[in-house]
Amino acid sequence: MGVLRLAHVDVRTPDLDLSTAYYSEVLGLSVVRRDDDVAYLKCWDEEDHHSLRLRYDSRIGLDSFTFRVEAEDDLHDLEKKLEAYGCAVRRVSRGEAVGQGESIRFEIPSGQTMELVWELEKTGNLLGKLNPAPMPPPTLPGIAPPRLDHMLINAEEVGESYAFFRDVLGFRMTEQVLDANNHQLGVWLERSHSPHDIAIVNGPNGAMHHFAFWLDDWDHVRKAADILAYNGVQIDQGPTRHGVTRGNTIYFFDPLGIRNEVFTGGYSPDPDFPAITWTEDQFGRGLFYYENVVAQRFLRFHT
Amino acid sequence: MGVLRLAHVDVRTPDLDLSTAYYSEVLGLSVVRRDDDVAYLKCWDEEDHHSLRLRYDSRIGLDSFTFRVEAEDDLHDLEKKLEAYGCAVRRVSRGEAVGQGESIRFEIPSGQTMELVWELEKTGNLLGKLNPAPMPPPTLPGIAPPRLDHMLINAEEVGESYAFFRDVLGFRMTEQVLDANNHQLGVWLERSHSPHDIAIVNGPNGAMHHFAFWLDDWDHVRKAADILAYNGVQIDQGPTRHGVTRGNTIYFFDPLGIRNEVFTGGYSPDPDFPAITWTEDQFGRGLFYYENVVAQRFLRFHT
Amino acid sequence: MGVLRLAHVDVRTPDLDLSTAYYSEVLGLSVVRRDDDVAYLKCWDEEDHHSLRLRYDSRIGLDSFTFRVEAEDDLHDLEKKLEAYGCAVRRVSRGEAVGQGESIRFEIPSGQTMELVWELEKTGNLLGKLNPAPMPPPTLPGIAPPRLDHMLINAEEVGESYAFFRDVLGFRMTEQVLDANNHQLGVWLERSHSPHDIAIVNGPNGAMHHFAFWLDDWDHVRKAADILAYNGVQIDQGPTRHGVTRGNTIYFFDPLGIRNEVFTGGYSPDPDFPAITWTEDQFGRGLFYYENVVAQRFLRFHT
Amino acid sequence: MGVLRLAHVDVRTPDLDLSTAYYSEVLGLSVVRRDDDVAYLKCWDEEDHHSLRLRYDSRIGLDSFTFRVEAEDDLHDLEKKLEAYGCAVRRVSRGEAVGQGESIRFEIPSGQTMELVWELEKTGNLLGKLNPAPMPPPTLPGIAPPRLDHMLINAEEVGESYAFFRDVLGFRMTEQVLDANNHQLGVWLERSHSPHDIAIVNGPNGAMHHFAFWLDDWDHVRKAADILAYNGVQIDQGPTRHGVTRGNTIYFFDPLGIRNEVFTGGYSPDPDFPAITWTEDQFGRGLFYYENVVAQRFLRFHT
Repeated sequence: MGVLRLAHVDVRTPDLDLSTAYYSEVLGLSVVRRDDDVAYLKCWDEEDHHSLRLRYDSRIGLDSFTFRVEAEDDLHDLEKKLEAYGCAVRRVSRGEAVGQGESIRFEIPSGQTMELVWELEKTGNLLGKLNPAPMPPPTLPGIAPPRLDHMLINAEEVGESYAFFRDVLGFRMTEQVLDANNHQLGVWLERSHSPHDIAIVNGPNGAMHHFAFWLDDWDHVRKAADILAYNGVQIDQGPTRHGVTRGNTIYFFDPLGIRNEVFTGGYSPDPDFPAITWTEDQFGRGLFYYENVVAQRFLRFHT
Repeated sequence: MGVLRLAHVDVRTPDLDLSTAYYSEVLGLSVVRRDDDVAYLKCWDEEDHHSLRLRYDSRIGLDSFTFRVEAEDDLHDLEKKLEAYGCAVRRVSRGEAVGQGESIRFEIPSGQTMELVWELEKTGNLLGKLNPAPMPPPTLPGIAPPRLDHMLINAEEVGESYAFFRDVLGFRMTEQVLDANNHQLGVWLERSHSPHDIAIVNGPNGAMHHFAFWLDDWDHVRKAADILAYNGVQIDQGPTRHGVTRGNTIYFFDPLGIRNEVFTGGYSPDPDFPAITWTEDQFGRGLFYYENVVAQRFLRFHT
Repeated sequence: MGVLRLAHVDVRTPDLDLSTAYYSEVLGLSVVRRDDDVAYLKCWDEEDHHSLRLRYDSRIGLDSFTFRVEAEDDLHDLEKKLEAYGCAVRRVSRGEAVGQGESIRFEIPSGQTMELVWELEKTGNLLGKLNPAPMPPPTLPGIAPPRLDHMLINAEEVGESYAFFRDVLGFRMTEQVLDANNHQLGVWLERSHSPHDIAIVNGPNGAMHHFAFWLDDWDHVRKAADILAYNGVQIDQGPTRHGVTRGNTIYFFDPLGIRNEVFTGGYSPDPDFPAITWTEDQFGRGLFYYENVVAQRFLRFHT
Repeated sequence: MGVLRLAHVDVRTPDLDLSTAYYSEVLGLSVVRRDDDVAYLKCWDEEDHHSLRLRYDSRIGLDSFTFRVEAEDDLHDLEKKLEAYGCAVRRVSRGEAVGQGESIRFEIPSGQTMELVWELEKTGNLLGKLNPAPMPPPTLPGIAPPRLDHMLINAEEVGESYAFFRDVLGFRMTEQVLDANNHQLGVWLERSHSPHDIAIVNGPNGAMHHFAFWLDDWDHVRKAADILAYNGVQIDQGPTRHGVTRGNTIYFFDPLGIRNEVFTGGYSPDPDFPAITWTEDQFGRGLFYYENVVAQRFLRFHT
């Protein structure tokens, strides 16, 4: 069985009120719980307790990111594999974290903290389970993506990170960028039959490049761009299209500088999908197919 | 592991040339092989040999439908389960069928022939694996869906069929329609983290209601409607939206009367997704959300 | 100069509160003035006082429809022409009608009351004239069309009505439907360089078939269908496409039974545009290009 | 009556074969006539002989641009006005220019050559006038816009140019950009009830900034971006949205460096539409609403 999908991203913000206002009013997530120094938010189609955790801290950044595993036993099996690899794994008991049961936490080779969990508190989506409407109420504010989709982290040694995610956690590579010496500059990895659940691109260890919300349509991408611009949000790139993953996309920054993405499109790879390779000289098209440029702000700026 | 996804649909046609012309020129599939009395076709984003097999026969109808399993061992495991259930399972050796390796075939409780296979001949999609464009050539004719998505079959005893697909083949129910006595009138089942890989709706045993191709966008749904009408294809329903699965859709008939669908949208259920229930009195909205009507031609006509 | 465009439609409703709630909350128009027995509404991009007037009356129906003329002198010139044709023309003084200056009213050959006006009270659109956003606030409720677009009335003698609109009012025909004897069953007429400002189709004198709001995109057509179905509004036809005018469209009924349309697409005819002709045997495609059917409820039901 | 709309743009190209190939295969226009050193092209929905004239010359640039007038007499009336203003007007007889009758040519204050014509050879659009399909054949190659929409020229003295277009030719201003001293940096002018038929922006006299083709939908904007990128065309800006005119847009360069645009959206101004004003400090949003930046390549590069 193994890893199933991205469950939630936990970030730090020096202005919790501002961040909460942005993610609820502009992104259109629901605030499901607000404590003194933490806010929990979710998208309208998510069944679980939350997909975004904002925690007050004087320094902005990534606390951790959490993937759900498919079966309860997977936690134990993956813990063994992680320890065999040399990771220090910490068990987090039920009750220690809001909205979920027992989990394991560990540092991945590029320095970020990753968590695996099976039990998530099932609070249900906004539509219910009895004769539901096929879309949320038209009055829902903001971009209102249905769900969190994927994230991108940086690593100084992409190849080493890829090996860890592949061999220890069972991720499968869908796409990679190779430099002239066939070293990996970036890899896109999946467990959920999508183009990517996580991507790893060359950059400083410990850094997060962005996390992304799913949209259903190119139409929603324009609606998102309209809403972002209307609210004065800084757009980093887009609306445009990726060569890698094929997705239509916009990148933009939350008020404290964390990069967000809205994303739609892609494909449905089988587990034995033969990976796509991009050569460095063609990576302009791979990154942004319309612009055909390796955008430096995009590659160099992260949290 | 178990069943992965729908791999191909095999149908009979009394006019192989006409059917082949329709599926290649109007639907926009590629003819990958044409023998005297059989044609094999695939969509532009499919990696395997084919997803549609047309066979000449004086009577139109469904020969069989084939699901891929995730691992080679799954064939053996599922064969055991099928035999334990009481199915007569036939092994089909490598070389007996075009484009795939060893498979098993059996009759499901509602009378259709189902096949499971692991090894599919990997002939690659139209884009290739090195610096590919994110979409097919703009000159591709017809609707040009990226891939086959799901199918719907009929069963006199929906509950019995559901139990078979759940207990023997490991399918998970995402949605169901119940009559006033809580008997199942229809079930939607998945293995691929989509709203449905197969649906089973009350109707005569042995019948196929439709098979469906994926589209990426509501925009492509209009393009499909334009192309269908331009070519004089009879549209059965749509463009419209389902309540069940949330998808945007068009139903239409191939020249010999087999119902096709193009479909986009939906959601991404976890394996423990709590199923959605539709009551019979609200099923008009479930079937076609905009029309809010239980369309009789749609429910009564099948192949 | 002459007639410029449709300015407002005035209808009667036996439930003014319900009609006002529907047009403001579901259609998304703004209520600009509400008196005891009359409500005035407008779309977000309309510069004038109102485009829809709802008046309480025990019987539902059309009070009148108003076109704007291009120049002040046009009123006088057209009055002369109308009187020469034999119309009884009534001058309505400034102050008699809310939101506009002097106008002329008369009965057209098919029995409806038509009004011409030049001076409309300029209250401005929702965006303003200084550094405006290119779209209305994302929080605007309902379908929120930018503007009223056209209307369709019935006439027992379409040919006679066409001659009146052409010769007296200067309308230009873009499309017509002819029966086997070359009698006109319907005509589409314009003054604003669009496929139609008014259409006249065979039916009982005095009747209104529908009035239509503009949408910018096929995407907004789906959004409109979602909102209509979500609010339980009865959809008559669509989302679909016309052959006549090429537009993408939905027809639906307001709570008292007046047919509304949302419409997008079309073309930009020159004043000497050679009219398109539809023969009766092909009018199924002309009416609804995807369905290819002369829908009887659509043709027979009017207000 | 007066000026009706933009009829055709005449440009010079040092590589006529390459330019013709680009405009026919990538843009998707039809070549209606090809002489030794001139090619005439049109869009699929244009009724007249051509909307683009490519002429071989060693230097790339604008030969002239042609507006159609509404009535034959308008030519004479406007000639008088032009001469009264001080323009040297040249009559071009029927037979001198391909695809049109008598015309007048003159130099506008910013140095470009403008032409007015009434009689255009009516060769019809691709759909015909009898029971036409509502869209062109799905197999039409390239972006396939329905028609030419507008153009943008440069002028050293925008205010002087605006006065000329307003007072002599009867154009109406829909939008303007003012600097801190209330001098006009750009004006958008219309005759066809659209946001602009021509725009004039500060820059060198004689220069053309771009000409634009109409698209019906945001969906077609993405299709255009896909086709442009697929064919290796350099995209200058977009897909994005203008604040000015509200339109969704892409700017790109033809193979010889002439800037093209595809455009959709906008609004329908009355002749007495009160113009929108942009202040220079907010013009980033006016130019590109999503990017909010006064793009220097966009403003400084012209033909």
